[in-house]
Amino acid sequence: MKIYEFTQAPNPRRVRIFLAEKGITVPLEQINLAAADNRKPEFLKINPMGGLPVLELDDGIHIAESVAICRYFEETHPKPPLMGIDAKDKAVVEMWQRRMEFEILMMTAGAFRNMSDFFKGRIPQVKEYGEVCRNAALKRLEWLDTVLADREFIAGPRYTIADITAMVGIDFGRTTGIKILENQKNLARWHQAVSNRPSAKA
Amino acid sequence: MKIYEFTQAPNPRRVRIFLAEKGITVPLEQINLAAADNRKPEFLKINPMGGLPVLELDDGIHIAESVAICRYFEETHPKPPLMGIDAKDKAVVEMWQRRMEFEILMMTAGAFRNMSDFFKGRIPQVKEYGEVCRNAALKRLEWLDTVLADREFIAGPRYTIADITAMVGIDFGRTTGIKILENQKNLARWHQAVSNRPSAKA
Repeated sequence: MKIYEFTQAPNPRRVRIFLAEKGITVPLEQINLAAADNRKPEFLKINPMGGLPVLELDDGIHIAESVAICRYFEETHPKPPLMGIDAKDKAVVEMWQRRMEFEILMMTAGAFRNMSDFFKGRIPQVKEYGEVCRNAALKRLEWLDTVLADREFIAGPRYTIADITAMVGIDFGRTTGIKILENQKNLARWHQAVSNRPSAKA
Repeated sequence: MKIYEFTQAPNPRRVRIFLAEKGITVPLEQINLAAADNRKPEFLKINPMGGLPVLELDDGIHIAESVAICRYFEETHPKPPLMGIDAKDKAVVEMWQRRMEFEILMMTAGAFRNMSDFFKGRIPQVKEYGEVCRNAALKRLEWLDTVLADREFIAGPRYTIADITAMVGIDFGRTTGIKILENQKNLARWHQAVSNRPSAKA
């Protein structure tokens, strides 16, 4: 078993943090995104979408998509639970995971993809759409600050995959000037708490 | 228990099909997206993101996000399984569900959001980004045709949530001229099979 990843990219970080919280070690193999190694034919055989990370199981099966990889380890190593504990809680955690993914991480990533020099000439960049993403992310951080007024973590009293996605999304916002504002005290308190966990450095 | 939804929109259709496949009936309450009723303060209390569908449980808890709602019913009504049967299969199904969501449904929806008159004045539309989405969707359909050359359904031999997301995504493509091409025989065969299931009309 191994994981293809690229340490600087946000999605591989999600999986590394998830594994660290579970106390699981999996060998990592770097695929250099900066050199576009993920677009080479050998890698496209592993994941036709070209995305990272990808989990390779011992029988040769490849699991792409960060949350699908997390699901695999949640099922094989249920403790501590990071994706919910019963039907209702699993649904609540999945709702928050998706909100954090679509409203925060995809927006900071969308800003970067469409505005950074990194993607120049690699994908059709639409700067105006990058601005839409940046504004959406900033608006959502404002909202997330109010959500965190009455709870310790994003999905309630327990740390979950939703916290991982939100932290990784917010931290990636630095690439395009998206950040927690000084008056967003709840968000800042939460961000400090999740950043102080040893897993944040994984 | 009830579900807030809007029959013409793609995401509520995903949940209706999922429930039909499980043989579950849940009362539906219409929230008129065309009249922007989902942006009114009463509804934003139910889902601050404004999206549909939303499941309301008997204890007053609201579950937003189509896949989170499906997760709830997968857990409470495991048969027939639509989200995988063991750790590896659950991860594989989730990978394909996410690919169909990000590469097909979000692209046909992104084309519609950014190019249609429906969203004019409601959201900051970027026509050029709508074109990027349309081109991406067309390219992905071409790829999906090759995937379906050696399997009956998107994630393998069994019908799953990935088929639901793909069918709804492709059908929604009609709004912006995205469709299965005549030479995409595998995709056409699959699309006919999933469309012929009684659940497709839910």
